[in-house]
Amino acid sequence: MIVVQQGIPQPEPVSPYLKVRRKKRLSTDEYVAEILAGNRVVLSQAITLIESKASKDIVIANQIIEKCMLNSGNSIRLGITGVPGAGKSTFIEAFGKYLTSIGKKLAVLAVDPSSERSKGSILGDKTRMEELAVDSNAFIRPSPSGLTLGGVARKTQETIILCEAAGFDVIIIETVGVGQSETVVKSMVDFFLLLMLSGAGDELQGIKRGIMEMADALIITKADGDNIARATAAKALYKSALQLFPKNENNWDVPVDTCSVFLKDSVENIWNIISEFEKQTKENGFFNKHRAEQSIKTFYDWINDLLKESFYSNKKNETKINKLLPQIRAGKVSPYHAGIELVKRHQTK
Amino acid sequence: MIVVQQGIPQPEPVSPYLKVRRKKRLSTDEYVAEILAGNRVVLSQAITLIESKASKDIVIANQIIEKCMLNSGNSIRLGITGVPGAGKSTFIEAFGKYLTSIGKKLAVLAVDPSSERSKGSILGDKTRMEELAVDSNAFIRPSPSGLTLGGVARKTQETIILCEAAGFDVIIIETVGVGQSETVVKSMVDFFLLLMLSGAGDELQGIKRGIMEMADALIITKADGDNIARATAAKALYKSALQLFPKNENNWDVPVDTCSVFLKDSVENIWNIISEFEKQTKENGFFNKHRAEQSIKTFYDWINDLLKESFYSNKKNETKINKLLPQIRAGKVSPYHAGIELVKRHQTK
Repeated sequence: MIVVQQGIPQPEPVSPYLKVRRKKRLSTDEYVAEILAGNRVVLSQAITLIESKASKDIVIANQIIEKCMLNSGNSIRLGITGVPGAGKSTFIEAFGKYLTSIGKKLAVLAVDPSSERSKGSILGDKTRMEELAVDSNAFIRPSPSGLTLGGVARKTQETIILCEAAGFDVIIIETVGVGQSETVVKSMVDFFLLLMLSGAGDELQGIKRGIMEMADALIITKADGDNIARATAAKALYKSALQLFPKNENNWDVPVDTCSVFLKDSVENIWNIISEFEKQTKENGFFNKHRAEQSIKTFYDWINDLLKESFYSNKKNETKINKLLPQIRAGKVSPYHAGIELVKRHQTK
Repeated sequence: MIVVQQGIPQPEPVSPYLKVRRKKRLSTDEYVAEILAGNRVVLSQAITLIESKASKDIVIANQIIEKCMLNSGNSIRLGITGVPGAGKSTFIEAFGKYLTSIGKKLAVLAVDPSSERSKGSILGDKTRMEELAVDSNAFIRPSPSGLTLGGVARKTQETIILCEAAGFDVIIIETVGVGQSETVVKSMVDFFLLLMLSGAGDELQGIKRGIMEMADALIITKADGDNIARATAAKALYKSALQLFPKNENNWDVPVDTCSVFLKDSVENIWNIISEFEKQTKENGFFNKHRAEQSIKTFYDWINDLLKESFYSNKKNETKINKLLPQIRAGKVSPYHAGIELVKRHQTK
């Protein structure tokens, strides 16, 4: 007789023929050794650990990162953004192919806070960067998905470290979509490239405030065929617009130029601009100073993010805030007085 | 025999003829009643309470503010900033005199995080705004001193509330000095006026990045005598520069104009621009929406400031951070990992 005990869940029946072969996980040292040897499969697996939410994975990921940091830093980190329609993917494909043709090892990462694997991010759209995707000297990794902008930034910066440890000497960080991702990408790169479209008058309308001021070079794309005259006119316009801005701290004259992905010289010219920037800023000390400042800024920004997270995720605080908001909005309660009362109890143990 | 007990401090000898008459402090309700009646002496005293660091004063100040809030909001709040040499004080004096001449009651406040009473702030330099200072319909108050920018912002916003309760219908917030004060002033006003100098080519060099994008109107000052042609040329230059920026959310066409403080029409024109802005944005609902958003933003910004203050002022945290900084700067420790370890223990009790 079979007695079924009510309330106790029965195990799912398991077929004896269905044996799942679990992959043996590498040790931290094995991960690091394989990454340093340039093993892209292990590199990919390690990046997946970085992106994981399981606490076991996070512990190992942190160990791998700390060890890889000693072998990181030897790349030039390029941020690439562009107005919609500027042909960013096409440019990165042509530019990347040029880089691998001169012997560079290139990693392309994306920062896209809105991404879910299926839409928007690199390789989600299978037609993007087809040639580069199969180039053995290029490594393309889509944006981690399902994270806040701060989370994506963190994962991307940690991925840069692993890619550098794996020997990639040019790292491209691509912004995907429109939003705040430009500022975040700018904060993690040595050189920030802005791709613009030729055209007249309205072209700045599509670009977020302040982006132009962040650029280390401004490139007008699609400068070929019957578009050449317009591209040249746009170049003059942007040159005069740039003169209105104060000079950057790095003392670099931001070049404005046109580019056609069909002309090798034209693509090579972009790399020459970047190489000249690297040379100048390494000579005048800005390059390393800038990286050190970026790390310190990242540290404080991250602490401040975490402080906010720990405060706002507290249920008691949330309830109190929700009560206060309508009164503050209506001008009946001082935001200052209310703020002090709220934060008083939030302290280091 | 007189025995002097060593070690015990003797009281100072007090002349029986010197009786200090201590002013009786008003009750909160008395303060509020006098402010609502437009008593400027009491208004000044209440602002001094706001600026006080004594906890007894702060308690009363908060009570006064909460009560005055019910009668606040009925003014137009103007932010005025300018490049060095644009003649801000001269402009405010002329503009202020015009406003009182048409029956307006005007309060002029300053935001100057660097100010100590003796240097820089309004009335510190006695030659500034001489006429306005003795105008019975104008109330001028220097920037609170010895505070951080966040502190100055807080005091200034609370002072706005008291001034509005006292019946002032135009509040000018002046930025003093160069720095971040523009952003802070922008965050507390309805209309932001940028004063520029005529001249050629270099004039944007003196102005902080992003300031031009914050302006609701751009006025070229000193458009008189043999400066008129240059001012008109500058007007055309700025007009075309402004076209490069995307439109503001309030749908307002940012006007660029010239102004001479010697011409009444010219000063009146600025007020007409502001009145038109007020009319348009009240009609399309932006005015009140913008104020509500400002209050909510102030609330969150203030909470975030307080969170940082409570974290960084903690000695344990400070010691740990100081140990970590050189390692982070050198790229040996991940700013992310270090940050998490630090913030873990900072929580709401």
